[in-house]
Amino acid sequence: MLSKIKDLLIGPALPTQILGHKQLNKIRALAAFSPDALASIAYANQEIYLGLIVAGSLGLTYALPIGLGITALLIIVALSYFQTIHGYPSGGGSYIVARTNLGDIPGLLAAAALLIDYLLNAAVSLTAGVAALASAFPNLWPYRVEIALFLLLVITLVNLRGLQEAGTVMAIPVYFFLAAYLSMLAYGLYRLVIEGPTSLASAAPPAMQPVTLFLILHTFSTGSTALTGVEAISNGVPAFRGPQAKNAGRTLLIMAILMGLLFVGSIGLTQFLGVVANPQETILSALSRRLFGSNLLYFFVQFATLGILTVATNTSFAGFPRLAAILARDGFLPRQFSSLGDRLAFTNGVVILGILTAVLIILFGGDTHALIPLFAIGAFLAFTLSQAGMVVHWWREHGRQWGLKSIINGVGALATLTTLIVVIISKFLEGAWITILLVPVILFGFLKVSRHYQQVQKQLSLKGLPPSLKPVEPTRVVIPISGVHRGMVGAVNFAKSISDNVTAVYVELEPGAGKKAQDEWESWWPDIPMVVVPSPYRSTVAPLLQFLDETDAQHNDGQLATVVLPEFIPSRWWQSLLHNQTAWLIKAALLYRRRQHGLERVIIDVPFHLT
Amino acid sequence: MLSKIKDLLIGPALPTQILGHKQLNKIRALAAFSPDALASIAYANQEIYLGLIVAGSLGLTYALPIGLGITALLIIVALSYFQTIHGYPSGGGSYIVARTNLGDIPGLLAAAALLIDYLLNAAVSLTAGVAALASAFPNLWPYRVEIALFLLLVITLVNLRGLQEAGTVMAIPVYFFLAAYLSMLAYGLYRLVIEGPTSLASAAPPAMQPVTLFLILHTFSTGSTALTGVEAISNGVPAFRGPQAKNAGRTLLIMAILMGLLFVGSIGLTQFLGVVANPQETILSALSRRLFGSNLLYFFVQFATLGILTVATNTSFAGFPRLAAILARDGFLPRQFSSLGDRLAFTNGVVILGILTAVLIILFGGDTHALIPLFAIGAFLAFTLSQAGMVVHWWREHGRQWGLKSIINGVGALATLTTLIVVIISKFLEGAWITILLVPVILFGFLKVSRHYQQVQKQLSLKGLPPSLKPVEPTRVVIPISGVHRGMVGAVNFAKSISDNVTAVYVELEPGAGKKAQDEWESWWPDIPMVVVPSPYRSTVAPLLQFLDETDAQHNDGQLATVVLPEFIPSRWWQSLLHNQTAWLIKAALLYRRRQHGLERVIIDVPFHLT
Repeated sequence: MLSKIKDLLIGPALPTQILGHKQLNKIRALAAFSPDALASIAYANQEIYLGLIVAGSLGLTYALPIGLGITALLIIVALSYFQTIHGYPSGGGSYIVARTNLGDIPGLLAAAALLIDYLLNAAVSLTAGVAALASAFPNLWPYRVEIALFLLLVITLVNLRGLQEAGTVMAIPVYFFLAAYLSMLAYGLYRLVIEGPTSLASAAPPAMQPVTLFLILHTFSTGSTALTGVEAISNGVPAFRGPQAKNAGRTLLIMAILMGLLFVGSIGLTQFLGVVANPQETILSALSRRLFGSNLLYFFVQFATLGILTVATNTSFAGFPRLAAILARDGFLPRQFSSLGDRLAFTNGVVILGILTAVLIILFGGDTHALIPLFAIGAFLAFTLSQAGMVVHWWREHGRQWGLKSIINGVGALATLTTLIVVIISKFLEGAWITILLVPVILFGFLKVSRHYQQVQKQLSLKGLPPSLKPVEPTRVVIPISGVHRGMVGAVNFAKSISDNVTAVYVELEPGAGKKAQDEWESWWPDIPMVVVPSPYRSTVAPLLQFLDETDAQHNDGQLATVVLPEFIPSRWWQSLLHNQTAWLIKAALLYRRRQHGLERVIIDVPFHLT
Repeated sequence: MLSKIKDLLIGPALPTQILGHKQLNKIRALAAFSPDALASIAYANQEIYLGLIVAGSLGLTYALPIGLGITALLIIVALSYFQTIHGYPSGGGSYIVARTNLGDIPGLLAAAALLIDYLLNAAVSLTAGVAALASAFPNLWPYRVEIALFLLLVITLVNLRGLQEAGTVMAIPVYFFLAAYLSMLAYGLYRLVIEGPTSLASAAPPAMQPVTLFLILHTFSTGSTALTGVEAISNGVPAFRGPQAKNAGRTLLIMAILMGLLFVGSIGLTQFLGVVANPQETILSALSRRLFGSNLLYFFVQFATLGILTVATNTSFAGFPRLAAILARDGFLPRQFSSLGDRLAFTNGVVILGILTAVLIILFGGDTHALIPLFAIGAFLAFTLSQAGMVVHWWREHGRQWGLKSIINGVGALATLTTLIVVIISKFLEGAWITILLVPVILFGFLKVSRHYQQVQKQLSLKGLPPSLKPVEPTRVVIPISGVHRGMVGAVNFAKSISDNVTAVYVELEPGAGKKAQDEWESWWPDIPMVVVPSPYRSTVAPLLQFLDETDAQHNDGQLATVVLPEFIPSRWWQSLLHNQTAWLIKAALLYRRRQHGLERVIIDVPFHLT
């Protein structure tokens, strides 16, 4: 029943040997690695708009300059990662580059930043996608959390199935998005040339804040989330058709050009067409509505936005579990993150990411704008560490043009570090502090887990054990009994099957009951001695523990007696409230006193089924 | 550590033999059994006031007539219970009286009603006590829930200690309350005579509803909660000094007279002095403030009210666990309710009552008025069943004056039944439906538990088993291993100590790993065969289950092989997230497939301690 539902939702198990690389041509590779980066412009655009609108029409005139500044940063970062692709053709994720070149701690810092980045990318992309949808259908606006959670559930299930067959399917929304947005921008440019620019002054609400340097930096730092996802191609070089590095590098440049074009184009059009959005609409929706009216073309653009953002969410579901698996393999996360599930997906990572994303969406009310301050930190911290690692890489390698290469990555590292500092300062109170707090906490967790696994490794070593292990003593068994009844038969039989030294113990709660029980016992099991222990304080557990301690001390045979407990298995769940309480108490007490004198007592439940 | 905290809060264990009856004289018995009944007038008064104030000053003039009606009901019920005391000198709780005379179902109905009654008495008394306190200190009003929960915690802990030494302590608040209220009423009467009556017309807010029959009945039914607790003495006759029935009967009459005096006196004074309360004050507080001003005497009265209501809460903590224990002894509730704790208190009943009361207080926002509609049903249902049982009792006994006695109890039963019907009709939508729903649910639970215990009793019988039990086969043992390491040593040793037929099974997740493990295994345990099972789908569990099934089928020796699992015991709690996952999966799978072909597999954890 359960397994049938699982098969329906997740699909039947797949054998290990079908795991392998499929090589992608550039067209497919662009679709596979770019959605995260391309989709970023949707929420970055929105953040720039929201950051400036508080300063009225004057504020909004700064949109294009800020957009151009971010595009300059994009060029620097793209060139930086172009070099990473050639330096690490086998896949240069920030964790690997930082750990190899800068050391364990910077590497783990990058890993912590990346995990947070993946998580926030999922939450931000999904909520931004839902905002695009709700801009088109305003009556959905109050249900953004529910819609986002539903889409999240679908994405999680799809990823639990594994995505072997999804390469082509994923390309559709990406190219649909590119086609829709490039056409819209071209048409917008045509309209702008014909109509001439529109002033923002009449449409924008009155300024509530002056234009300050802080406002500009603040807007720049939220807008810089446009860059998230640029690094994706550098992680996936082995997935390209050969010559891998060359093709990957070219794809990265194409992607960066497309990003810049879409980003600057949409910001410029918005500004020169004097577009302003109402509170329940995104600025890109307002731009599209301004150009097309609320007709079919407008809805195409909104669905294209939802589509690319959904696919962008999905990139987190590929990246997070894979990184968690690498960290688990390296001993920094629990091992179960590295086990491939039935469908060759890293099940645990997918499930954890799904849950954490849902928590974020609920906590932040499905509001992209509230999540953004947490987002940029992780991305830019990983960028900085990765680029700094590349500087060390070129310097160590001392290859052709290593100086130039170092300088390019150095400029990248400096630019992203500067952005990181700007983001931290301007966004600290709005939520950046959460990420700043989480990064060291996660780092600390990595180190604790790693140290623990290393210690266990040492303890598990068989070195130092004598080659012939000590001879094994036969087990003594004690059965605590509550009375002479059929529930005891299985336990007594099992005890006899594992030992020739079995004792039954009866704790006498009411004076006189022991004698009666003993007589009954002897008529059924005359070969097994039964001991009656009085209990003046009505506790079943304490006298039993005392009996065990005393007999263990008497035998002094280097072991503690094994306790066999009959366990009632009721046929219905609620009946379990009516049974086994004393057995639980005994077990809890024995577990609480684990390991006396370096020895451990084995407790065995022998089931007795009730009908 | 834990046990030291427990000793500090709860006290050390007490031996069974100190359990016994202490005989109370009338002064102490009144203090022991009357607080519930006396305290009821606090919230009953408040409810009558709240019921009538909506009809303005005209409405409030019905307070005294309603109070006199309730007092008439009180006289009938008190006479009824006076007879119960003489009919059941060994203690005539509603459950016992109804079950003995009317049968199991009416008895259990009474028991269900009583459990609900005890629970609501605790919640209502406590919140009413806190309302008295917050009337005196208005800045405490927003924290009524927190204060009530704190007092509840204290009362629960005191009852977990057991109340051996509390008899005298409990008498203080009772007599303090009586002294404070009787003095206040006397002083009020004096003032009334001197000043003459004050009209309500000027003080009362304008009427929002007309005075209807429904309004009167509604107010009557909430005011009738004044009667709750009258039955307490009849349960406790054995605690009186001899002649027990005579002394208990007299104490009941004294208590009823005191109740009537306090109830009618306070209502009458409130009405004739034209007292009206503001929304954050109880009417008794307003009366006291009207008489004394906000001076020390006023605070005395408020603390006296809080004191008696706290003691009244405590009566639930005596009654509920005792009734639950009786029901558990009779097989209608889980047995653990009948076990006396370390301190000779029915620990489980006390804890459950504490939790349920806390839930009620939180759900109803600490508001007495919201809880009242749930309350009266249980009390009057139990009254009715108990009085009806007494009618049958006298009729069956056919003793002296059995006709008269039957008539008195019959009138009692009729009066309480009528009140019950009025309460149900007038309070249904306000919350009475909850109680009406709960009573049959609890009754159903009693019957389910009882039938289950009876069935188990039959299944546990050894009758029909052959006198000499079948011979026991030696156990076969299978150890699933994850590798050859020190964590296996204990498990292998234990397996060897209980069986000569031990097999290790290694599930090979990565091709080739099995051969390596086998070579290592043979160098340490050459005498134990190790089997490598391939796992093309990366599942550890499925191949292991298949191996067990196949080998069990091969041996066909009337048993399933025992599985010995090495269990890692980490030294810190969080480390348990890093271990034993595979062992858990194996155990879960084996438990899920419990009982194949009528046989059950025993699973044994052998601990390995990590440091």
